[in-house]
Amino acid sequence: MPAYSTNMRLKFPILALTLEIITIILYAIFVTYDDGKSSHDDHASNKSHTEENPLSLYPMFQDVHVMIFIGFGFLMTFLKKYGFSSVGINLLLAAFGLQWGLLMQNFWHMDKDGKIKVSIEKMINADFSTATVLISFGAVLGKTSPVQLLLMTLLEITTFCINEHLVVEVLGASDIGASMTIHAFGAYFGLAVARMLYRPALRNGHENDGSVYHSDLFAMIGTVFLWMFWPSFNSAIASAGYPQQTAIINTYFSLAASALSAYATSSLLEHKGKLDMVHIQNATLAGGVAVGTCADMNIGPFGAMLIGLIAGVISTVGFKFLTPILASSLGIQDTCGVHNLHGMPGILGGLAGIVAAALGKKEDIKPTMQAAGLASSLGFALVGGAITGLLMKLPLWGQPPDQNCFDDSIYWEVPEEEEENEESLAHADHSKNKAEA
Amino acid sequence: MPAYSTNMRLKFPILALTLEIITIILYAIFVTYDDGKSSHDDHASNKSHTEENPLSLYPMFQDVHVMIFIGFGFLMTFLKKYGFSSVGINLLLAAFGLQWGLLMQNFWHMDKDGKIKVSIEKMINADFSTATVLISFGAVLGKTSPVQLLLMTLLEITTFCINEHLVVEVLGASDIGASMTIHAFGAYFGLAVARMLYRPALRNGHENDGSVYHSDLFAMIGTVFLWMFWPSFNSAIASAGYPQQTAIINTYFSLAASALSAYATSSLLEHKGKLDMVHIQNATLAGGVAVGTCADMNIGPFGAMLIGLIAGVISTVGFKFLTPILASSLGIQDTCGVHNLHGMPGILGGLAGIVAAALGKKEDIKPTMQAAGLASSLGFALVGGAITGLLMKLPLWGQPPDQNCFDDSIYWEVPEEEEENEESLAHADHSKNKAEA
Amino acid sequence: MPAYSTNMRLKFPILALTLEIITIILYAIFVTYDDGKSSHDDHASNKSHTEENPLSLYPMFQDVHVMIFIGFGFLMTFLKKYGFSSVGINLLLAAFGLQWGLLMQNFWHMDKDGKIKVSIEKMINADFSTATVLISFGAVLGKTSPVQLLLMTLLEITTFCINEHLVVEVLGASDIGASMTIHAFGAYFGLAVARMLYRPALRNGHENDGSVYHSDLFAMIGTVFLWMFWPSFNSAIASAGYPQQTAIINTYFSLAASALSAYATSSLLEHKGKLDMVHIQNATLAGGVAVGTCADMNIGPFGAMLIGLIAGVISTVGFKFLTPILASSLGIQDTCGVHNLHGMPGILGGLAGIVAAALGKKEDIKPTMQAAGLASSLGFALVGGAITGLLMKLPLWGQPPDQNCFDDSIYWEVPEEEEENEESLAHADHSKNKAEA
Repeated sequence: MPAYSTNMRLKFPILALTLEIITIILYAIFVTYDDGKSSHDDHASNKSHTEENPLSLYPMFQDVHVMIFIGFGFLMTFLKKYGFSSVGINLLLAAFGLQWGLLMQNFWHMDKDGKIKVSIEKMINADFSTATVLISFGAVLGKTSPVQLLLMTLLEITTFCINEHLVVEVLGASDIGASMTIHAFGAYFGLAVARMLYRPALRNGHENDGSVYHSDLFAMIGTVFLWMFWPSFNSAIASAGYPQQTAIINTYFSLAASALSAYATSSLLEHKGKLDMVHIQNATLAGGVAVGTCADMNIGPFGAMLIGLIAGVISTVGFKFLTPILASSLGIQDTCGVHNLHGMPGILGGLAGIVAAALGKKEDIKPTMQAAGLASSLGFALVGGAITGLLMKLPLWGQPPDQNCFDDSIYWEVPEEEEENEESLAHADHSKNKAEA
Repeated sequence: MPAYSTNMRLKFPILALTLEIITIILYAIFVTYDDGKSSHDDHASNKSHTEENPLSLYPMFQDVHVMIFIGFGFLMTFLKKYGFSSVGINLLLAAFGLQWGLLMQNFWHMDKDGKIKVSIEKMINADFSTATVLISFGAVLGKTSPVQLLLMTLLEITTFCINEHLVVEVLGASDIGASMTIHAFGAYFGLAVARMLYRPALRNGHENDGSVYHSDLFAMIGTVFLWMFWPSFNSAIASAGYPQQTAIINTYFSLAASALSAYATSSLLEHKGKLDMVHIQNATLAGGVAVGTCADMNIGPFGAMLIGLIAGVISTVGFKFLTPILASSLGIQDTCGVHNLHGMPGILGGLAGIVAAALGKKEDIKPTMQAAGLASSLGFALVGGAITGLLMKLPLWGQPPDQNCFDDSIYWEVPEEEEENEESLAHADHSKNKAEA
Repeated sequence: MPAYSTNMRLKFPILALTLEIITIILYAIFVTYDDGKSSHDDHASNKSHTEENPLSLYPMFQDVHVMIFIGFGFLMTFLKKYGFSSVGINLLLAAFGLQWGLLMQNFWHMDKDGKIKVSIEKMINADFSTATVLISFGAVLGKTSPVQLLLMTLLEITTFCINEHLVVEVLGASDIGASMTIHAFGAYFGLAVARMLYRPALRNGHENDGSVYHSDLFAMIGTVFLWMFWPSFNSAIASAGYPQQTAIINTYFSLAASALSAYATSSLLEHKGKLDMVHIQNATLAGGVAVGTCADMNIGPFGAMLIGLIAGVISTVGFKFLTPILASSLGIQDTCGVHNLHGMPGILGGLAGIVAAALGKKEDIKPTMQAAGLASSLGFALVGGAITGLLMKLPLWGQPPDQNCFDDSIYWEVPEEEEENEESLAHADHSKNKAEA
């Protein structure tokens, strides 16, 4: 089919290498090591971690790093034929995204000699910026080419950095765990892209759009690492000391509560009270998303648990009822259900932040600032995502045809299973060969 | 069969949500953040970590967290049809258990204003309390419903906290890596429950009670993460500085020695000297269990290695010879062989602690105190487990019928493999579909 | 076949237990805990970490530990029938190797009372020493017995420690991330062993020497953990503070650049521009290897990215073109392609170190010292590997026959797939059983 030029042999290497070489040139001009001597104006930290020890945040950085590369990567391996792309393209996009994000985030924070001074905290923020792309990737998973996705990475991270600057530094909203600026933003950006890339032929599902037993277990690797390290995500750039401890504690308890409510709701909604893996893989994490904005606020452990409890319910209900409606009525085909894990819980987090601000749970923040931050994040996401989706729709980027969606073999060399070559052999032998598959 | 009301649709959500809401109410009344200002009386630490930096233990907390959620969860995925339950119910029980454990452990340690002040150290202890349940879960794996297991979590953690308080604070025994209070306790509690839930029909095994090639590899994820982070488990609540380093070093070498002796013993006992995955997945960890009580004592690296060497042998021999005898003669069907990994090595650890106390390897401990601690742990485990098992036996908790044991599909929506729906298709097509399974 | 005595029942347990018991005796004589009071002469650290806090390096130790046991172990699970050996024998060799390495590395650094005082830094170095063996293991994967491999571990670590002492302390070369002393050394040692163990019958490949879909996903667990934690590997023993931060930053960016160039090159070289999992699993890591020697030097983030960019290209090209030539022309059958991941990028790292020394990027190092370090590492590797390979070739070590290569079942009890026992059942039943396989 001429409309689908899915051969990546030239366009993908050229785009990837061009982006990398441009990035290296920009780094040669603008980026150097932090030496602890520059004036710190990192927006998120009242007290600089690096004054004491430049490596004090390194263990948290590694937790976040694991969430980005193992967590997001394996979470998406639930599809039976799309595991290579899930974990592989996740690595590609994040590896480019962190380089690009560090540049974009810090053009606002250059040193007086015109240099961006890389520190562990800046590496954490760079990793954060890629999370937006990986969330959006979940919405369009299985329906996009690596070239389209590199393009999305470039545009989304740029948009994210503008919105983040606006929300946190211009508006002065508080969003320590980024419910608004990462989760809601990433989800609605991805949903806007998905809307633009709507595929009518997939209205009734696709035979590859499902899991098998072991692919669901691979996905649980992602889920559990995300679940465990989320306290680091929400606290990594909090002020050192007790505010950071508060962010850890709130996230720990919010996640625990959302796990319970996700399990309970899944069983309540399913046939014969059985648990649904999709809910468990995703809605158990909703507490981490929803407590993000309030994580470093004095909401009390029980407040965090309440937020988590509600998030787990909303997220599970969303998977059960809302995702099918979005697909059938609005033309938004959300492969991983990011609306349920990042979208609604992200908005819940933003709303909780407004309430917490009104109740005076953190100094120097106001409900109006918080509301403006949420509105800005949603606005940038929807407009940015729609424009990005339109650009991604251009046929030259190699979008896969409908029948090849959710299938690694269009962009990857996939190992041929033995039996395909041995169809004439006896059945018993086939069984034996397949046993190891 | 009317005796088995395995539909969880109402009873599971009601129990899970009720437990969570009660917990949230208790947290609203009793739990707040540690602000570093309260008088510290944490039993396990002579010198408070938190005086310097409230986050100094956070990297160790995360290691323990990984052991609880990835380590225990994936270790049990070795069963071919029970991976969803292994990693999924592990997450559920630990998420509830840590909330409950934090309450139960600290009712003895309230601040003067009647509050429990959460710190990273208390989060570590809360995670520890869940380990007892996850060990017992291994004994009854495949033969219990989520409702039964939530009930067990509630009762076992409560019992654990009473015994731990008695052993460590009343008797004054030393058990830094919890060979006695967690491992032996969890194992014998679980074995007592398993005895109460004895299923005569499973005397000759069950067709689902076994592994397939890839399920054994998933289990190795659990094994290796447990093996790597065990030094953190045994040292996390040790006194800061050199005692903590001693606990790390002893555990590091004990595990290394038990790996060698587990491999050697497995090969010695098996047909043609082949290695058995069950031994490797479990007995390589026995050194971590057995060195627990002595971990912060001055036993010398070679002393730790000796303990590990013996533990690896005992554990492997137990899997080969003792587990079948327990099942056939005593009616104790120990699915994961927790007696071999946690039970006997836990007792070995307790005995090693008695010897080390007699040899004066740590100040202020006496052999009698250590022996009393071991006896108390075993006593509480057996009595508590027996009572808990009796309660769990009530038919209303939805225990699975014999024929549905070790099978996720009774409590989970399991992806239908494609070929089941396509039985009329040609064989070659079947092969292709199954290839991805 | 009498030439292959692959029954391990006596020889493997005897060798493993003998090595362990000798090691324990040596530890009883020579090894004690670091108490912070000894005079520190750790070659690699200008400023001792342990003076402040003996545990300051512990989070980095754990990152390295994960690389050794999860990273290397799972990276090699790509083979469809050799996952047990990959992750299992990896654990065995590393568990013995770290005990042996700690002894060998520190016979040069005994305290004045004749004791080796174990610290976290010495544990990191012990883990490092095992990496050489695990790299060489990759070259001979699938073609060697556990007994042969234990022997290789003993000899290779001994050789490594002599060379490392020579390069770092006698020659005074700088190799903080060990591009030369670990990666190039381990690769060429393994290739020399592989040359000695050349199997003409495998010239045209072997039916088991390939992956299946899920084995490639298991391997990605290894890849991603190695990728994420490589900054810790390259910085763990760097001088505390900013030099350590520099090593982290350089490695972070080098890896990101090598990921982009590996993806681009893979697509460029493959049929229809598809990505090849072998390249992604390996060449994305080449940036970590190649930046090792220069990691703590002032090469600038862009310099690190350039090194990574080149390494990713070289490594991918090596997999595509050089590995087949080495096998067909030189008789070097390199199962995992360690020449491409560790060999060439290791030499690139050594050359980059010479250039950086010439450009004055680190104090007190000279190009000649660096060049001598590279030459020494290659020389010791090739000679040591050749002699070790000759010893390993002796028939009594139980090398597997050609037809049993790359197959776990020769040294492991492998779960029988159900359908093998049920060949007479109807096809539909077979399908159901296999579904979980």
